[in-house]
Amino acid sequence: MSSAEDLAHLIAPIEQGLAAMRLAIDDCCSEKSGAVSDMTSHIARFRGKQLRGALVLLVGQASENYTDEHPQVAAIVEMIHLATLVHDDVLDGAEVRRRVACVNERWDNQIAVLLGDFLYSRAFGLSTQLRSRLCSRLLADTTSRLCVGEIEQSTMRYHFEMSQADYERIAAAKTGTLYSAACELGARYPEGDEARWKEMREFGSELGLAFQIIDDCLDVVGEEDVVGKSVGNDVADGKVTLPVLRTYAEANELTRASIRDAYTMPGIENRRDALREVCDLHPGTEYALNRASELVERAMQRLAQLPRSPARQALEGMGEFVLQRRW
Amino acid sequence: MSSAEDLAHLIAPIEQGLAAMRLAIDDCCSEKSGAVSDMTSHIARFRGKQLRGALVLLVGQASENYTDEHPQVAAIVEMIHLATLVHDDVLDGAEVRRRVACVNERWDNQIAVLLGDFLYSRAFGLSTQLRSRLCSRLLADTTSRLCVGEIEQSTMRYHFEMSQADYERIAAAKTGTLYSAACELGARYPEGDEARWKEMREFGSELGLAFQIIDDCLDVVGEEDVVGKSVGNDVADGKVTLPVLRTYAEANELTRASIRDAYTMPGIENRRDALREVCDLHPGTEYALNRASELVERAMQRLAQLPRSPARQALEGMGEFVLQRRW
Repeated sequence: MSSAEDLAHLIAPIEQGLAAMRLAIDDCCSEKSGAVSDMTSHIARFRGKQLRGALVLLVGQASENYTDEHPQVAAIVEMIHLATLVHDDVLDGAEVRRRVACVNERWDNQIAVLLGDFLYSRAFGLSTQLRSRLCSRLLADTTSRLCVGEIEQSTMRYHFEMSQADYERIAAAKTGTLYSAACELGARYPEGDEARWKEMREFGSELGLAFQIIDDCLDVVGEEDVVGKSVGNDVADGKVTLPVLRTYAEANELTRASIRDAYTMPGIENRRDALREVCDLHPGTEYALNRASELVERAMQRLAQLPRSPARQALEGMGEFVLQRRW
Repeated sequence: MSSAEDLAHLIAPIEQGLAAMRLAIDDCCSEKSGAVSDMTSHIARFRGKQLRGALVLLVGQASENYTDEHPQVAAIVEMIHLATLVHDDVLDGAEVRRRVACVNERWDNQIAVLLGDFLYSRAFGLSTQLRSRLCSRLLADTTSRLCVGEIEQSTMRYHFEMSQADYERIAAAKTGTLYSAACELGARYPEGDEARWKEMREFGSELGLAFQIIDDCLDVVGEEDVVGKSVGNDVADGKVTLPVLRTYAEANELTRASIRDAYTMPGIENRRDALREVCDLHPGTEYALNRASELVERAMQRLAQLPRSPARQALEGMGEFVLQRRW
C-alpha cells in the first residue's frame, strides 16, 4: 500500500469532520476582491496532507472531547499552517510545492508576504467567532513561538557545530508547536480533561518533531518527483539539519571542509548534489531516522491511556505514517 | 512651531496613557530569545509618531469612553501598524525608515517576514487577554482588509489610467481601515454608544485617507532628510498615486509617454528625479492636497457632536497636523 493510501485509510473515521473543515477553510478564505480570490484558489491546490487539521479531529474523537466546533478549530490550524507555507516559500526561494508553482513564483514576493498575512488574519478572525476564546489564545501564542523558532533557525544558518539539542529545540519550536497545539486543542477545546490534554500536547510535540526530522532527511536524500516539492532547499539555504549535523560531527577534518564548501563555495548550482558527492549521508540519515522512531515510540505510549476506538487506532497508524512517508 | 512640536502639544492630554501604551508594547514584544530581542529593540527605534495609538486614547477620552484597557488597545493597534511597516519594507525594498536601517537591510528579507509575523501574533495574543473580545474581532477583520488593499495596490502597479475612485478605495483599505479601527475602538471599546462610535469610525476613515494622500505627495515631492524615510519608493515600485494620476490625466500624449518611461525604462537609477524632469507635478500635488483638506474638513465636522474637552481640541489639531506635516 502506498503511503497516500495509508493516509486515506487513517483519516476514514473523521471524513465528515474533514469535509466540514475544508468548507470552513474555503469560506474563511473567500474574498470579493478578484485579485485575492485568484490567489486563494491557486493556493487551495497545494493544501497537501492536512495532517494538523486531521490531528485536531482524531484527537478530539479519541479523547471523547469532539464538539461541533472541532472542524472550525481544525480549519484555523490548517490556515495558520498554510500561511507559514506561503511565507516559507518566500524565505526559501523554493520553486515548486506539491507540484504547483509557489505564490512567489506565480506572482511575486510582495504578494506572497501579503497573502500570508491575509491568511493569518482570516484564521485569527475565524477563531474570534468561536464560543470559547481558548483557540484564539492558544494559537496566537503558538504562532509567536513558531516565528521565534524560524528566526532562531535563520540566525543559526551555516552553524555546522550546532548541538543536537539546539537543532531539536528549534525544530520543536518551528514545527512541533503547531502539532502540539493541534493535539492539545483536539483534547481540550473548549474544556476537556486537563491530565488528558496535557498528555496529548506532548504526543503532538513528539510527533511533530519526528515529522520535521523526516522532512529534513527527505530534503537531503529524497527525490523531488516523489517528495512533490523542491528538495535540497535546506542545503541551498544554509540550514544544517540533523542528518548533516551528525555526518559532520563524525567526519574527519578534510571531509568537514568539503561539507562546508558544498554549502558555501560560490558558483555551485546544485548544492545538495555537491554535498552528496563529498560525504556519505547514509549513516547520518540512519541516525536521524532512529531518533524520529524513538520520538514516535514515546508518542505512541501516550495513546495507551485513551479508550480503544477507531480514532485512537488511526492515531497509532499516524505514527507509522510519519516514519514511513516519502512525501 | 515645527510639526514635531505641534504633535507633542496635541498629545499632552494623553501623556499618561501613551506612557502606559509604550510599556505595554515593550512588554508584549519582549522575548527571551536573544536573536528576537535584538530585533525588537532595533525596531523600537523607529516607532515614529504613534498617531494610531494616540487616536485610540484621544477618541476614548473625547467620547467619554476611556477605560483602563485603552492603553493596551492602543498598544495592539500600534503593533499591528509596526508589523505592516516591517513587511512593507520587504515589499518596497526601502532602505531607510525614520533614519534607522530597515530590518531587511540590517538583517535580511527572511528575518523581516518572520519578525512581522511575530509582531502580528503578539498583537493578537495581547488582544486575547483583554476582558472584551471586541478588540480581537475588530482588528482581525481590519488586518484582513488592510492586506486586501495592499494586494490590490500591488496588482494595480503601472496602471496610469486608474480612476481616482479606485485609488481612494485602495488607499482607504490599506491605510484608512487601521485609522478607522483605532477611532472606532477608542469610542466603542468595550461597549460605547453606537451612534457615537459609528461617527468616530468615519472620522478615522477620512483622517486616514487624508494621511495617505499626504504621504503619497511627500513620496514624490518631499525631501528625504525632512521626511525621515526613503522617498521616491512609489515611483520605483510602480505605484501610481493621486498626484501622479492627476498629472497624467491632465498631460498631453507626449508627456504621458515620458511619465510611463520614467516609471518603466530600464536603467534609470532615480526614477523620481526622472519623473520630476518630464512633468510638472505641482498642479497634481495641489489637487491631491485639496482633496486631503476636503477629507479633513469632513472629519472635523464629525467632532462637533462631542462634548468640549482638551481631547476633542487635540483631535481638531490632529486634522491640521495631518495636512501640515512634512514628515
